[in-house]
Amino acid sequence: MSKKRVAVIGAGPSGLAQLRAFQSAAAKGEDIPEIVCFEKQDNWGGLWNYTWRTGLDENGEPVHCSMYRYLWSNGPKEGLEFADYSFEEHFGKQIASYPPRAVLFDYIEGRVKKANVRDWIRFSTVVRWVEYDNDSGKFTMTLHDHQKDYVYTEEFDNVIVASGHFSTPNIPYYEGFESFNGRLLHAHDFRDAREFAGKDILVMGSSYSAEDIGSQCWKYGANSITSCYRSAPMGFAWPDNWEEKPALVRVEGNTAHFKDGSSKEVDAIILCTGYKHFFNFLPDDLRLKTANRLATADLYKGVVWVHNPQLFYLGMQDQWFTFNMFDAQAWWVRDAIMGKIDLSAVTKEQMLADVKEREEREEADDDTKYAIQYQADYVKELVAETDYPSFDIDGACQAFFEWKKHKMKDIMGFRNNSYKSVITGTMAPVHHTPWKDALDDSMTAYLRN
Amino acid sequence: MSKKRVAVIGAGPSGLAQLRAFQSAAAKGEDIPEIVCFEKQDNWGGLWNYTWRTGLDENGEPVHCSMYRYLWSNGPKEGLEFADYSFEEHFGKQIASYPPRAVLFDYIEGRVKKANVRDWIRFSTVVRWVEYDNDSGKFTMTLHDHQKDYVYTEEFDNVIVASGHFSTPNIPYYEGFESFNGRLLHAHDFRDAREFAGKDILVMGSSYSAEDIGSQCWKYGANSITSCYRSAPMGFAWPDNWEEKPALVRVEGNTAHFKDGSSKEVDAIILCTGYKHFFNFLPDDLRLKTANRLATADLYKGVVWVHNPQLFYLGMQDQWFTFNMFDAQAWWVRDAIMGKIDLSAVTKEQMLADVKEREEREEADDDTKYAIQYQADYVKELVAETDYPSFDIDGACQAFFEWKKHKMKDIMGFRNNSYKSVITGTMAPVHHTPWKDALDDSMTAYLRN
Ligand SMILES: Cc1cc2nc3c(=O)[nH]c(=O)nc-3n(C[C@H](O)[C@H](O)[C@H](O)COP(=O)(O)OP(=O)(O)OC[C@H]3O[C@@H](n4cnc5c(N)ncnc54)[C@H](O)[C@@H]3O)c2cc1C
Ligand SMILES: Cc1cc2nc3c(=O)[nH]c(=O)nc-3n(C[C@H](O)[C@H](O)[C@H](O)COP(=O)(O)OP(=O)(O)OC[C@H]3O[C@@H](n4cnc5c(N)ncnc54)[C@H](O)[C@@H]3O)c2cc1C
Ligand SMILES: NC(=O)c1ccc[n+]([C@@H]2O[C@H](COP(=O)([O-])OP(=O)(O)OC[C@H]3O[C@@H](n4cnc5c(N)ncnc54)[C@H](OP(=O)(O)O)[C@@H]3O)[C@@H](O)[C@H]2O)c1
Ligand SMILES: NC(=O)c1ccc[n+]([C@@H]2O[C@H](COP(=O)([O-])OP(=O)(O)OC[C@H]3O[C@@H](n4cnc5c(N)ncnc54)[C@H](OP(=O)(O)O)[C@@H]3O)[C@@H](O)[C@H]2O)c1
Repeated sequence: MSKKRVAVIGAGPSGLAQLRAFQSAAAKGEDIPEIVCFEKQDNWGGLWNYTWRTGLDENGEPVHCSMYRYLWSNGPKEGLEFADYSFEEHFGKQIASYPPRAVLFDYIEGRVKKANVRDWIRFSTVVRWVEYDNDSGKFTMTLHDHQKDYVYTEEFDNVIVASGHFSTPNIPYYEGFESFNGRLLHAHDFRDAREFAGKDILVMGSSYSAEDIGSQCWKYGANSITSCYRSAPMGFAWPDNWEEKPALVRVEGNTAHFKDGSSKEVDAIILCTGYKHFFNFLPDDLRLKTANRLATADLYKGVVWVHNPQLFYLGMQDQWFTFNMFDAQAWWVRDAIMGKIDLSAVTKEQMLADVKEREEREEADDDTKYAIQYQADYVKELVAETDYPSFDIDGACQAFFEWKKHKMKDIMGFRNNSYKSVITGTMAPVHHTPWKDALDDSMTAYLRN
Repeated sequence: MSKKRVAVIGAGPSGLAQLRAFQSAAAKGEDIPEIVCFEKQDNWGGLWNYTWRTGLDENGEPVHCSMYRYLWSNGPKEGLEFADYSFEEHFGKQIASYPPRAVLFDYIEGRVKKANVRDWIRFSTVVRWVEYDNDSGKFTMTLHDHQKDYVYTEEFDNVIVASGHFSTPNIPYYEGFESFNGRLLHAHDFRDAREFAGKDILVMGSSYSAEDIGSQCWKYGANSITSCYRSAPMGFAWPDNWEEKPALVRVEGNTAHFKDGSSKEVDAIILCTGYKHFFNFLPDDLRLKTANRLATADLYKGVVWVHNPQLFYLGMQDQWFTFNMFDAQAWWVRDAIMGKIDLSAVTKEQMLADVKEREEREEADDDTKYAIQYQADYVKELVAETDYPSFDIDGACQAFFEWKKHKMKDIMGFRNNSYKSVITGTMAPVHHTPWKDALDDSMTAYLRN
């Protein structure tokens, strides 16, 4: 019998976790399937692979990157550390807790360079279409190689979708947008806070993007920041030139009008209104449709497509845990594909019941601590079922709980705190410069002790 | 035998010309095939359907619109008038020669409303994939209905690609773009010139977008305009605050450096660097790959896909003539599909020879007048072979020749001229306000006499 062929869509943190999972089994002498990873960008790293481009890329494809210059991790690195590859192993020393994008990119890359899996990836290759054939039991994938501008198809036994879900912007319309005379953009297209120096900006939304993009603009000299919320205010102790308002009602010329009857003249509106799960390469029988939540629809164990268990999804949950959760999922999916976990023993009814139980448990409480613990329990559950190195997941939770408190205390200063690694047990140093004064976000600047 | 099924991709001017072509045959009592037009936007008009959105649209699809607020026709309307539906018929009077976008949108819409073909169009429906099956001789189209978020397939005997080729931006990289601290965008994402009031802007390119976007910014109060060319300067008599420079070499911070050693501090860079023919829904055996030129590759008579004559393309040429050329093509394609023009009598060799002859003839001279006449001859050729109302195409050429002269004389004033309709023979009125002073581009403002 010829080897199973497994396709991985995307070489971001999730897809790379999948490659590392298979490689680690091979390193232990196990016989692994043939793995082919398709990545539309010309490098790995997913969202962490920064580009100045917005809209469509050099090949005419939607730009994947939603990150921006000067972005620092918004959660402590102690909550995401790889159990099989510590920050100390990578950098040769412990580093401060909120690394800028370039530093985390380097860390992600370090592990897969060591694993030597780059050859498994076909870069600049877009997955255009995937179809499952009931008779052959195989997937046919249609692929566009942009280097050769060549479209071809290949067959696979399993497909793992790791294409991310923070790249297709959710862009609502509000009255007056069509005649606003300033700059109007979604967070996905935000790149350089310096563009907004001296400006009055409005950020819409009350989640991570609103908080972080507003904070960047504040740090790099915006004249004033107004943020507005649909459901609830962020409620941090904002600096003097930041005002939080209720929902936007409409825009007239350059004036934004809010629900409480107040208004504000603004130069730019930045829509921090979230993202959509979007899979333009999948037919309806394979296509995940879900809200951005902890218990995604139709995924058994959060990864197996209930309607066709040869198909898997990684990282489709809303995320407290990131890299380490993707690892837990990737190791689990590897074992399901290699038959170490027996999916054929699980009926569709059992899978659907699993999904339902997760949904109900998520909905049982809307407290943030509960949500963090819920996702920690999920990571624990998966880790326990594979040979992924176990680690102190409750300890990682503690870092998140402290982080939450630090943010409430000082929203422009929370990144000056440090936490203890649950992988190596060492305490992170306090960063040499307070975040608000550290205008240079390069790796050299960050790693300087 | 059941009716032939014909799919039209796109309801812009080209796709709509195709619907009108079939409807006009039906109106004459002819038995026409079943026509289904797929349009990814929620309205017709193609590029002329303005949106404030940039990047990805409300459904996560690339925004098609490359037009912007305050855009006026860049050529005289006398060069594009429909032979079967004059401006006078639509507006009840003759109107000035360079209508703003909203006025031309209204005109395009008027004809197809009269033809009553809106029901043939499935809006908010993206063509995801097209495949040809040799055995059945049919195309299978995979369609994504965004209203229902539902993906389905249907079979067709013919496919007509009318998806345009000025929506996928060509975005070159220049050194320093990744660290430019201002606004950096492609013409495709340009929307409102007022955003650049008081700013120093750099427009890259020396073609229509560079000229027109620079002019808009000038009109709406940019502090200075710098344009730079790769091959040749535009060479118009620019206003005092507009300087034309040779090629950009690199950017450093906010400073643009040019080939002649000069430099300029700029707040924004607008890449007017053209577009790509891009068909992400077609496999290689059906996919047009061509430069933006008058004699497109692999299209017999400029419309028939040489490698599979059941497939047609409309409007894929670089364009002097637009609406009337699309009409000529659409009527011709209609007749080829209905068998009035017999494609089976033409061998592949003959088709390839036809393409080659057109290419050689285009390349024989690089004079602008020659190019305009070349495309006029092409329109004449097609019109002569169908029942499309013949009109004075050489007269339309004259309007273009005059337009060229008017631009050389006064680049900020050429739109104050008027020309004679070759359809109704009447002279257009001179517009009530010089273009540079007409800040309101609404239809009401334009039509006021
Ligand atoms: C602005 C922003 C900031 C964030 N900051 C943090 C942070 O500080 N800390 C943290 O832990 N997490 C952060 N995240 C969360 C982020 O989701 C994860 O860190 C991580 O990037 C998710 O990895 P992924 O591999 O699942 O998806 P992605 O990183 O999105 O990678 C998906 C990959 O799939 C590829 N792809 C997509 N479609 C196709 C296709 N059709 N064909 C081929 N390839 C395709 C893409 O090019 C991409 O490389 C942030 C997210 C955003 C949006
Ligand atoms: C900035 C700009 C200004 C211009 N100004 C003028 C002018 O002043 N005068 C003039 O005569 N010409 C002008 N043009 C030229 C323009 O090309 C034509 O006027 C005309 O719009 C071309 O018509 P079309 O139908 O071929 O393509 P488009 O107008 O581009 O329409 C194509 C249609 O196909 C749809 N589509 C694309 N892909 C899919 C898919 N996968 N599934 C479903 N639907 C799809 C699109 O949504 C769109 O509606 C301008 C072009 C640009 C870019
Ligand atoms: N530095 C960093 O590390 C960093 C920075 C930015 C983002 N991120 C990550 O990026 C991911 C996405 O975060 P996000 O903030 O972009 O998305 P998100 O968490 O999904 O939040 C979306 C926000 O938009 C609002 N919204 C949605 N539709 C709206 C509408 N029609 N009108 C008004 N408001 C609307 C929502 O309001 P409701 O509450 O009313 O629904 C919510 O506040 C997260 O994983 C986050 O951690 C990280
Ligand atoms: N108001 C209006 O009606 C209006 C306004 C704008 C556009 N349009 C229409 O839109 C269509 C497209 O026009 P366009 O101007 O966008 O595209 P275009 O005519 O294809 O011109 C592209 C320009 O970009 C330059 N360029 C390409 N690659 C480059 C690179 N790597 N570096 C530097 N320069 C580069 C080209 O220079 P070279 O000459 O060196 O190749 C050329 O000047 C036309 O049909 C036009 O009529 C109409």
